[in-house]
Amino acid sequence: MNDIHTSTLDCGATLAVEPIDGVRSAAISLLLASGNAYDPSNAIGRAALWSEILLRGAGAHDARAQADLFDRLGASRSSDAGRVMFRIGASMLGERLADAIKPMAEMVLEPRFDAEAVENARELSYQAIESLRDDPQHRAVLSARERHFAVPYNRSGYGLTDHIRAMSRDDLRDGWMRSASPRGAVIGVAGAVDHERVRAQLNDALGSWLADGERIVPGDAPPRGYAHEDDDSNQAQIIIVHDAPYDGHDDRVLERLLTSVLSGGMSSRLFTEVREKRGLCYSVSASYTAEKAFGSVSAYVGTTPERAQESLDVLHAELVRIGTAEGAVTAEEFERARTGLKSRLVFAGESTSARAAAIAGDIARIGRARSLGEFADELDRVTLDRLNEYAQRRELGRLTVQTLGPAALRPPAGVAEA
Amino acid sequence: MNDIHTSTLDCGATLAVEPIDGVRSAAISLLLASGNAYDPSNAIGRAALWSEILLRGAGAHDARAQADLFDRLGASRSSDAGRVMFRIGASMLGERLADAIKPMAEMVLEPRFDAEAVENARELSYQAIESLRDDPQHRAVLSARERHFAVPYNRSGYGLTDHIRAMSRDDLRDGWMRSASPRGAVIGVAGAVDHERVRAQLNDALGSWLADGERIVPGDAPPRGYAHEDDDSNQAQIIIVHDAPYDGHDDRVLERLLTSVLSGGMSSRLFTEVREKRGLCYSVSASYTAEKAFGSVSAYVGTTPERAQESLDVLHAELVRIGTAEGAVTAEEFERARTGLKSRLVFAGESTSARAAAIAGDIARIGRARSLGEFADELDRVTLDRLNEYAQRRELGRLTVQTLGPAALRPPAGVAEA
Repeated sequence: MNDIHTSTLDCGATLAVEPIDGVRSAAISLLLASGNAYDPSNAIGRAALWSEILLRGAGAHDARAQADLFDRLGASRSSDAGRVMFRIGASMLGERLADAIKPMAEMVLEPRFDAEAVENARELSYQAIESLRDDPQHRAVLSARERHFAVPYNRSGYGLTDHIRAMSRDDLRDGWMRSASPRGAVIGVAGAVDHERVRAQLNDALGSWLADGERIVPGDAPPRGYAHEDDDSNQAQIIIVHDAPYDGHDDRVLERLLTSVLSGGMSSRLFTEVREKRGLCYSVSASYTAEKAFGSVSAYVGTTPERAQESLDVLHAELVRIGTAEGAVTAEEFERARTGLKSRLVFAGESTSARAAAIAGDIARIGRARSLGEFADELDRVTLDRLNEYAQRRELGRLTVQTLGPAALRPPAGVAEA
Repeated sequence: MNDIHTSTLDCGATLAVEPIDGVRSAAISLLLASGNAYDPSNAIGRAALWSEILLRGAGAHDARAQADLFDRLGASRSSDAGRVMFRIGASMLGERLADAIKPMAEMVLEPRFDAEAVENARELSYQAIESLRDDPQHRAVLSARERHFAVPYNRSGYGLTDHIRAMSRDDLRDGWMRSASPRGAVIGVAGAVDHERVRAQLNDALGSWLADGERIVPGDAPPRGYAHEDDDSNQAQIIIVHDAPYDGHDDRVLERLLTSVLSGGMSSRLFTEVREKRGLCYSVSASYTAEKAFGSVSAYVGTTPERAQESLDVLHAELVRIGTAEGAVTAEEFERARTGLKSRLVFAGESTSARAAAIAGDIARIGRARSLGEFADELDRVTLDRLNEYAQRRELGRLTVQTLGPAALRPPAGVAEA
């Protein structure tokens, strides 16, 4: 596994570089504490607009000239407004990274917010919101999220049409210049790179970076419980969300193993119990997401309306059963889950863009970058007893159950209607 | 770039192995001349059923035991019925490949077709067909395909509900044992592997493989032209398909460059003309697919019903304009397209599963595996004059234009209603 070089840039941002032998590509991932949870309560959708506007002109380059510049470098850019962190990323040949750093820094320091760019971004936001109507699975996920997490961590990321319409260019630009701060910013770089050279280039490009940053003001406890949304589609969408360890918690490795036992392959419990034995559904899965201060597991079943009630019942039963003595993880399941996670570690380690994003995310969430070897060691130290002890003591918290389809379902015992 | 070792196995199948330095993962991709174009005309959906059934038991292992076995190896399997080739693939650590080869060979030689596995596969097929109703973009793509290509290359891949219901276990098993032949079969392996050892292991595991194989009987010329499908969704889906070089053709590299000029990045023509300048759509793209005997470019716009007509007009105009003297590719566009394709080559070369699939596909389509270096050299030899000469002489053939949404559109001049 590779070494990771972490340092603080002159501007105050944290840099982590993981040189990878034998590759020619390089990836850079810049995280800012400017995700959609930072949107002002009367400007929900601000980060979504930024994610399009930043790709449309900075410094001396208007949208077209900037696109030409990155395409000439063979660099593919992306920009996403996450829940907490706003991410700007790019992949290219390692030998081109030096030429890409300055224009990437300009995207942060001198975005132009040209009128045409702002209007294009606004139009795209409206259309993205509109197209949700045709995507029942995604709508169910967003409804579950809205009721499971506290404000403002519960936002869809798409924003609200009225707010998007009301934001002026100045609002958007001033907000960005205030929010995009080197404090809390993290830059991850991985691949065919020299860590000292990258550091010097970034110090050069970001030397003048100064901004206060913004704060998130958490709201009241979320409602959770059961809710149904009527929809005339031909499928029933079912989501269950429960609490899970935050990212820096010692139990994180254990939760990842449990999620893998439930949903890590064709021998996993959800696949065999919900899909194979009972033929209940087309698609079933569970995934674990860990933020800095909280975590969650979200389980999903997509099925026919006729099978929806039984699918919900079996899904809920499996999520609970793994925490009981009768449903304890077996030695076989444990080994399969561990082997699967280790294999996926190796696959991830061979992708420069996955590594750049991972080390930057680590620093943003837990304050330091984890090597792949560190997680492999953590997995090796887990015993079956420790895993089952965790499964039986962990608290799922108040569940959120969301259904979307032609008819409401009977929620699991103990889950109240919201 | 890496060497590729091609040889013929004792059973007659072709093997191509690309060892990649510096990686720990390995991938294997097995292609059989058993894709959905080989489905008998009264059993459309046979290959789709196979793709689920093969993952559910072979040799001494029933579905559950087989899933356990691969999960214990940390191997992730997949199986897809393509148009021409049926693909079985797996990724794992290189050190586990030896243990995965025999069970993979059993999936081909001794699939069990257990009653429960067959019924599960059937249920999944029904649900997949049903869920298409909620996916207007994909339905538009399938409708365009159905009218653009000759029977049986025009199939959706999902199969027909009545045919799926009518196929017996024996039909399915006998069909597989006849169709899955070493003749025309190709195995691609890439990553942390030793090519001579892999060859010996495959000869060992596949020594008894014998089957006649089946033939495709091509049907009449396809209708093409314009057709509209009414749909009450909130978006308009627009597809244009035209002819393009087959895979082994010298012009393939030129078509890839043209597609990249049209759709290769944020400075590409479709992105700037359709999405940015006119704000016409949410999503626009074009992609080039090359089979052994024919090729096609499929262009897509997803937009609002109000903007649908103008989007179709502009999309069509851009597809035609690149082949005119006024719309010739510029030197800048050419360099950007070439740089972009070369960067993506490097990214693809760092993925073992992409390489295993690519070298196997090469042999199936053009009879030999191409190294990444070969394509890079081909790109280097292209001149702007040669590219524009091609753009102006190429024939798009009779176009297929498909729309799906609340209202029919006016087709481009020269495109007749089907």
